Amino acid sequence: MHPDRRLRGHGALLRACAASGLLVATAWAVDESGKPAAPIYGVTIPDGYRDWRLIAPALEDAPLNELRAVVGNDRAVAAYRDGTLPFPDGTVLVKLAWKRMPSTEFESATVPGRATTVQVMVKDAKRYAATGGWGFGRFIDGKPVDEAQHQTCFACHEARVRDHDFVFTRYAR
Amino acid sequence: MHPDRRLRGHGALLRACAASGLLVATAWAVDESGKPAAPIYGVTIPDGYRDWRLIAPALEDAPLNELRAVVGNDRAVAAYRDGTLPFPDGTVLVKLAWKRMPSTEFESATVPGRATTVQVMVKDAKRYAATGGWGFGRFIDGKPVDEAQHQTCFACHEARVRDHDFVFTRYAR
Repeated sequence: MHPDRRLRGHGALLRACAASGLLVATAWAVDESGKPAAPIYGVTIPDGYRDWRLIAPALEDAPLNELRAVVGNDRAVAAYRDGTLPFPDGTVLVKLAWKRMPSTEFESATVPGRATTVQVMVKDAKRYAATGGWGFGRFIDGKPVDEAQHQTCFACHEARVRDHDFVFTRYAR
Repeated sequence: MHPDRRLRGHGALLRACAASGLLVATAWAVDESGKPAAPIYGVTIPDGYRDWRLIAPALEDAPLNELRAVVGNDRAVAAYRDGTLPFPDGTVLVKLAWKRMPSTEFESATVPGRATTVQVMVKDAKRYAATGGWGFGRFIDGKPVDEAQHQTCFACHEARVRDHDFVFTRYAR
Protein backbone atom coordinates (compact mmCIF):
# COMPACT_ATOMS: atom_id res chain seq x y z
CA MET A 1 0.00 0.00 0.00
CA HIS A 2 1.25 3.43 -0.86
CA PRO A 3 1.91 5.45 2.33
CA ASP A 4 -0.58 8.10 1.30
CA ARG A 5 -3.38 5.55 1.16
CA ARG A 6 -3.08 5.11 4.92
CA LEU A 7 -3.36 8.79 5.66
CA ARG A 8 -6.80 10.22 5.86
CA GLY A 9 -8.19 13.43 7.09
CA HIS A 10 -5.18 15.58 6.44
CA GLY A 11 -6.45 16.75 3.07
CA ALA A 12 -9.95 17.22 4.39
CA LEU A 13 -8.63 19.18 7.34
CA LEU A 14 -6.56 21.43 5.13
CA ARG A 15 -9.52 22.02 2.87
CA ALA A 16 -11.66 22.91 5.86
CA CYS A 17 -8.97 25.32 7.03
CA ALA A 18 -8.70 26.92 3.62
CA ALA A 19 -12.45 27.33 3.45
CA SER A 20 -12.60 28.92 6.88
CA GLY A 21 -9.53 31.06 6.30
CA LEU A 22 -7.85 29.62 9.40
CA LEU A 23 -4.27 28.50 9.52
CA VAL A 24 -4.01 25.47 11.78
CA ALA A 25 -0.39 24.92 12.68
CA THR A 26 -1.09 21.73 14.62
CA ALA A 27 -2.88 19.87 11.86
CA TRP A 28 -1.89 16.25 11.51
CA ALA A 29 -3.07 13.32 9.52
CA VAL A 30 -4.73 10.25 10.95
CA ASP A 31 -4.60 6.64 9.80
CA GLU A 32 -7.69 4.60 8.97
CA SER A 33 -8.33 3.89 12.65
CA GLY A 34 -8.18 7.58 13.51
CA LYS A 35 -4.76 7.52 15.19
CA PRO A 36 -2.48 10.51 14.64
CA ALA A 37 -0.01 9.55 11.92
CA ALA A 38 3.44 10.90 11.18
CA PRO A 39 3.86 12.94 8.00
CA ILE A 40 5.70 11.29 5.12
CA TYR A 41 5.59 7.82 6.70
CA GLY A 42 2.13 7.42 8.16
CA VAL A 43 3.68 5.81 11.24
CA THR A 44 1.49 5.76 14.36
CA ILE A 45 2.20 5.06 18.02
CA PRO A 46 1.68 1.31 18.44
CA ASP A 47 -0.85 0.16 21.00
CA GLY A 48 0.63 -1.32 24.15
CA TYR A 49 4.20 -0.26 23.47
CA ARG A 50 4.77 0.67 27.11
CA ASP A 51 4.57 -3.05 27.91
CA TRP A 52 7.13 -4.05 25.32
CA ARG A 53 10.48 -5.46 26.33
CA LEU A 54 13.51 -3.33 26.91
CA ILE A 55 16.20 -3.16 24.27
CA ALA A 56 18.41 -0.60 26.07
CA PRO A 57 18.40 2.59 28.11
CA ALA A 58 20.37 5.66 27.02
CA LEU A 59 21.24 9.18 28.02
CA GLU A 60 21.09 12.19 25.71
CA ASP A 61 23.22 15.18 26.69
CA ALA A 62 22.41 18.87 26.44
CA PRO A 63 20.47 20.49 24.97
CA LEU A 64 17.93 17.69 25.24
CA ASN A 65 19.08 16.31 28.60
CA GLU A 66 17.01 13.18 28.41
CA LEU A 67 16.91 9.72 29.88
CA ARG A 68 15.66 7.29 27.30
CA ALA A 69 14.65 3.70 26.86
CA VAL A 70 14.13 1.83 23.63
CA VAL A 71 11.62 -1.01 23.71
CA GLY A 72 10.73 -3.38 20.92
CA ASN A 73 7.92 -5.66 19.83
CA ASP A 74 8.43 -9.44 19.84
CA ARG A 75 9.87 -9.43 16.34
CA ALA A 76 12.38 -6.78 17.29
CA VAL A 77 13.52 -8.63 20.41
CA ALA A 78 13.89 -11.89 18.51
CA ALA A 79 15.94 -10.21 15.80
CA TYR A 80 18.23 -8.57 18.34
CA ARG A 81 18.80 -11.82 20.21
CA ASP A 82 19.41 -13.82 17.09
CA GLY A 83 21.58 -11.10 15.58
CA THR A 84 19.29 -10.92 12.54
CA LEU A 85 20.21 -8.09 10.17
CA PRO A 86 18.47 -6.53 8.40
CA PHE A 87 15.56 -6.52 10.83
CA PRO A 88 12.55 -8.37 9.40
CA ASP A 89 9.38 -6.67 8.23
CA GLY A 90 7.09 -6.04 11.16
CA THR A 91 9.91 -5.00 13.48
CA VAL A 92 8.82 -2.00 15.55
CA LEU A 93 11.04 -0.02 17.89
CA VAL A 94 9.82 2.69 20.23
CA LYS A 95 12.05 5.15 22.02
CA LEU A 96 10.60 6.66 25.18
CA ALA A 97 12.23 9.82 26.48
CA TRP A 98 12.01 11.89 29.64
CA LYS A 99 13.79 15.00 30.83
CA ARG A 100 16.60 13.95 33.15
CA MET A 101 16.00 14.99 36.71
CA PRO A 102 18.23 14.74 39.78
CA SER A 103 16.83 12.29 42.28
CA THR A 104 15.75 14.06 45.44
CA GLU A 105 16.34 10.85 47.38
CA PHE A 106 19.77 9.74 46.26
CA GLU A 107 22.34 12.39 45.37
CA SER A 108 24.25 10.51 42.72
CA ALA A 109 21.17 9.34 40.82
CA THR A 110 19.40 10.86 37.82
CA VAL A 111 15.85 9.76 37.18
CA PRO A 112 13.10 10.39 34.60
CA GLY A 113 11.25 13.69 34.80
CA ARG A 114 8.45 14.68 32.45
CA ALA A 115 7.97 12.72 29.27
CA THR A 116 9.14 14.49 26.12
CA THR A 117 8.90 12.51 22.87
CA VAL A 118 7.90 9.07 21.71
CA GLN A 119 9.79 8.00 18.59
CA VAL A 120 8.87 5.03 16.47
CA MET A 121 10.62 3.04 13.74
CA VAL A 122 8.64 0.54 11.69
CA LYS A 123 10.28 -1.91 9.30
CA ASP A 124 8.54 -2.52 6.00
CA ALA A 125 11.09 -3.05 3.28
CA LYS A 126 8.61 -2.51 0.45
CA ARG A 127 6.56 0.36 1.79
CA TYR A 128 9.62 2.27 2.97
CA ALA A 129 12.04 1.19 0.27
CA ALA A 130 13.27 4.75 -0.22
CA THR A 131 14.39 5.04 3.42
CA GLY A 132 16.22 1.81 4.09
CA GLY A 133 13.00 -0.06 4.75
CA TRP A 134 12.14 2.05 7.77
CA GLY A 135 9.28 4.39 8.50
CA PHE A 136 9.78 6.99 11.20
CA GLY A 137 7.44 8.78 13.57
CA ARG A 138 8.19 11.39 16.18
CA PHE A 139 5.42 12.31 18.60
CA ILE A 140 4.94 14.88 21.34
CA ASP A 141 1.94 14.39 23.60
CA GLY A 142 0.71 11.74 21.20
CA LYS A 143 0.77 14.06 18.18
CA PRO A 144 3.31 13.84 15.36
CA VAL A 145 5.78 16.65 14.86
CA ASP A 146 5.89 18.41 11.53
CA GLU A 147 7.06 17.18 8.18
CA ALA A 148 10.29 19.15 8.26
CA GLN A 149 11.41 17.26 11.36
CA HIS A 150 10.46 13.95 9.81
CA GLN A 151 12.55 14.75 6.77
CA THR A 152 15.65 14.69 8.93
CA CYS A 153 15.22 11.17 10.38
CA PHE A 154 16.57 8.96 7.66
CA ALA A 155 19.47 11.13 6.57
CA CYS A 156 20.97 10.91 10.06
CA HIS A 157 20.35 7.17 10.46
CA GLU A 158 21.74 6.58 6.99
CA ALA A 159 24.88 8.59 7.60
CA ARG A 160 25.69 7.00 10.96
CA VAL A 161 24.35 3.46 11.28
CA ARG A 162 23.91 2.09 7.79
CA ASP A 163 25.89 -0.98 8.81
CA HIS A 164 23.40 -1.78 11.57
CA ASP A 165 20.35 -1.61 9.30
CA PHE A 166 20.00 2.11 10.12
CA VAL A 167 19.31 1.41 13.81
CA PHE A 168 21.38 3.08 16.52
CA THR A 169 20.31 1.05 19.54
CA ARG A 170 22.01 -2.22 20.44
CA TYR A 171 20.53 -4.78 22.79
CA ALA A 172 21.85 -4.26 26.31
CA ARG A 173 22.96 -7.61 27.64
CA MET B 1 9.90 -20.82 55.77
CA HIS B 2 12.90 -19.45 57.60
CA PRO B 3 15.37 -17.89 55.18
CA ASP B 4 18.11 -20.29 56.23
CA ARG B 5 16.00 -23.25 55.18
CA ARG B 6 16.30 -22.12 51.60
CA LEU B 7 20.06 -21.93 51.63
CA ARG B 8 21.98 -25.07 50.98
CA GLY B 9 25.52 -25.89 50.11
CA HIS B 10 27.15 -23.00 51.89
CA GLY B 11 27.96 -25.05 54.99
CA ALA B 12 29.10 -28.01 52.96
CA LEU B 13 31.30 -25.81 50.83
CA LEU B 14 32.90 -24.20 53.85
CA ARG B 15 33.54 -27.59 55.40
CA ALA B 16 35.17 -28.75 52.19
CA CYS B 17 37.33 -25.66 52.16
CA ALA B 18 38.34 -26.15 55.77
CA ALA B 19 39.26 -29.77 55.08
CA SER B 20 41.37 -28.83 52.09
CA GLY B 21 42.98 -25.87 53.79
CA LEU B 22 41.79 -23.52 51.06
CA LEU B 23 40.21 -20.18 51.66
CA VAL B 24 37.54 -19.61 49.05
CA ALA B 25 36.57 -15.97 49.06
CA THR B 26 33.89 -16.46 46.44
CA ALA B 27 31.86 -19.03 48.31
CA TRP B 28 28.12 -18.51 48.11
CA ALA B 29 25.03 -20.33 49.10
CA VAL B 30 22.52 -21.85 46.72
CA ASP B 31 18.78 -22.28 47.05
CA GLU B 32 17.00 -25.64 46.75
CA SER B 33 17.12 -25.45 42.96
CA GLY B 34 20.86 -24.83 42.96
CA LYS B 35 20.69 -21.14 42.08
CA PRO B 36 23.21 -18.81 43.73
CA ALA B 37 21.43 -17.12 46.62
CA ALA B 38 22.17 -13.84 48.35
CA PRO B 39 23.44 -14.00 51.92
CA ILE B 40 21.04 -12.98 54.68
CA TYR B 41 17.99 -13.00 52.38
CA GLY B 42 18.34 -16.07 50.16
CA VAL B 43 17.21 -13.97 47.20
CA THR B 44 18.07 -15.39 43.77
CA ILE B 45 18.02 -13.92 40.26
CA PRO B 46 14.53 -14.62 38.91
CA ASP B 47 14.23 -16.58 35.68
CA GLY B 48 13.26 -14.54 32.66
CA TYR B 49 13.72 -11.14 34.28
CA ARG B 50 15.29 -9.69 31.12
CA ASP B 51 11.87 -9.99 29.49
CA TRP B 52 10.07 -8.15 32.27
CA ARG B 53 8.48 -4.78 31.68
CA LEU B 54 10.30 -1.54 32.20
CA ILE B 55 9.60 0.48 35.32
CA ALA B 56 12.16 3.23 34.65
CA PRO B 57 15.68 3.93 33.42
CA ALA B 58 18.20 5.82 35.55
CA LEU B 59 21.72 7.14 35.57
CA GLU B 60 24.18 6.72 38.42
CA ASP B 61 27.03 9.23 38.61
CA ALA B 62 30.65 8.66 39.52
CA PRO B 63 32.19 6.57 40.89
CA LEU B 64 29.82 3.95 39.47
CA ASN B 65 29.02 5.73 36.19
CA GLU B 66 26.21 3.44 35.24
CA LEU B 67 23.16 3.42 33.05
CA ARG B 68 20.43 1.44 34.69
CA ALA B 69 16.97 0.08 34.10
CA VAL B 70 14.56 -1.29 36.64
CA VAL B 71 12.14 -3.93 35.41
CA GLY B 72 9.37 -5.61 37.35
CA ASN B 73 7.27 -8.76 37.29
CA ASP B 74 3.55 -8.54 36.54
CA ARG B 75 2.68 -7.93 40.17
CA ALA B 76 5.13 -5.08 40.38
CA VAL B 77 3.83 -3.41 37.23
CA ALA B 78 0.22 -3.73 38.37
CA ALA B 79 1.07 -2.22 41.75
CA TYR B 80 2.89 0.70 40.17
CA ARG B 81 0.04 1.43 37.77
CA ASP B 82 -2.61 1.16 40.43
CA GLY B 83 -0.54 3.12 42.92
CA THR B 84 -0.70 0.23 45.39
CA LEU B 85 1.45 0.80 48.47
CA PRO B 86 2.82 -1.18 50.15
CA PHE B 87 3.68 -3.45 47.25
CA PRO B 88 1.95 -6.84 47.57
CA ASP B 89 3.76 -10.04 48.42
CA GLY B 90 5.26 -11.56 45.31
CA THR B 91 6.39 -8.23 43.90
CA VAL B 92 9.85 -8.58 42.40
CA LEU B 93 11.98 -5.74 41.06
CA VAL B 94 15.24 -6.20 39.19
CA LYS B 95 17.71 -3.45 38.49
CA LEU B 96 20.01 -4.02 35.53
CA ALA B 97 23.13 -1.90 35.34
CA TRP B 98 25.81 -1.24 32.77
CA LYS B 99 28.86 1.00 32.69
CA ARG B 100 27.97 4.18 30.83
CA MET B 101 29.81 4.48 27.54
CA PRO B 102 29.90 7.32 25.03
CA SER B 103 28.20 6.34 21.80
CA THR B 104 30.71 6.13 18.96
CA GLU B 105 27.91 6.90 16.52
CA PHE B 106 26.18 9.91 18.03
CA GLU B 107 28.27 12.38 19.99
CA SER B 108 25.66 13.50 22.50
CA ALA B 109 24.50 9.99 23.40
CA THR B 110 25.59 7.71 26.24
CA VAL B 111 24.82 4.02 25.87
CA PRO B 112 25.24 0.84 27.92
CA GLY B 113 28.70 -0.66 28.10
CA ARG B 114 29.54 -3.84 29.98
CA ALA B 115 27.04 -5.18 32.48
CA THR B 116 27.98 -4.65 36.11
CA THR B 117 25.44 -5.76 38.69
CA VAL B 118 21.97 -7.24 38.82
CA GLN B 119 20.07 -6.21 41.94
CA VAL B 120 16.87 -7.80 43.11
CA MET B 121 14.17 -6.87 45.62
CA VAL B 122 11.56 -9.45 46.60
CA LYS B 123 8.49 -8.59 48.66
CA ASP B 124 7.46 -11.08 51.30
CA ALA B 125 6.07 -9.27 54.31
CA LYS B 126 6.33 -12.27 56.60
CA ARG B 127 9.65 -13.75 55.57
CA TYR B 128 11.37 -10.36 55.49
CA ALA B 129 9.47 -8.71 58.33
CA ALA B 130 12.67 -7.33 59.84
CA THR B 131 13.55 -5.41 56.67
CA GLY B 132 10.33 -3.72 55.67
CA GLY B 133 9.03 -6.84 53.96
CA TRP B 134 11.80 -6.83 51.39
CA GLY B 135 14.58 -9.27 50.65
CA PHE B 136 17.58 -7.98 48.76
CA GLY B 137 20.08 -9.58 46.42
CA ARG B 138 23.06 -8.05 44.67
CA PHE B 139 24.79 -10.12 42.01
CA ILE B 140 27.89 -9.77 39.86
CA ASP B 141 28.25 -12.20 36.98
CA GLY B 142 25.35 -14.12 38.42
CA LYS B 143 26.99 -14.59 41.84
CA PRO B 144 25.90 -12.80 44.99
CA VAL B 145 28.20 -10.28 46.60
CA ASP B 146 29.21 -10.80 50.19
CA GLU B 147 27.20 -10.53 53.38
CA ALA B 148 28.75 -7.22 54.39
CA GLN B 149 27.39 -5.58 51.24
CA HIS B 150 23.97 -7.10 51.78
CA GLN B 151 23.88 -5.71 55.28
CA THR B 152 23.88 -2.19 53.85
CA CYS B 153 20.81 -2.56 51.59
CA PHE B 154 17.95 -2.03 53.95
CA ALA B 155 19.48 0.72 56.06
CA CYS B 156 19.78 2.95 53.01
CA HIS B 157 16.32 2.15 51.67
CA GLU B 158 14.87 2.66 55.13
CA ALA B 159 16.56 6.01 55.63
CA ARG B 160 15.58 7.44 52.25
CA VAL B 161 12.39 5.94 50.86
CA ARG B 162 10.41 4.62 53.79
CA ASP B 163 7.37 6.54 52.53
CA HIS B 164 7.46 4.68 49.22
CA ASP B 165 7.55 1.23 50.78
CA PHE B 166 11.36 1.35 50.77
CA VAL B 167 11.52 1.47 46.96
CA PHE B 168 13.45 4.22 45.17
CA THR B 169 12.23 3.72 41.64
CA ARG B 170 9.01 5.31 40.37
CA TYR B 171 7.18 4.23 37.27
CA ALA B 172 8.25 6.34 34.29
CA ARG B 173 5.12 7.46 32.44
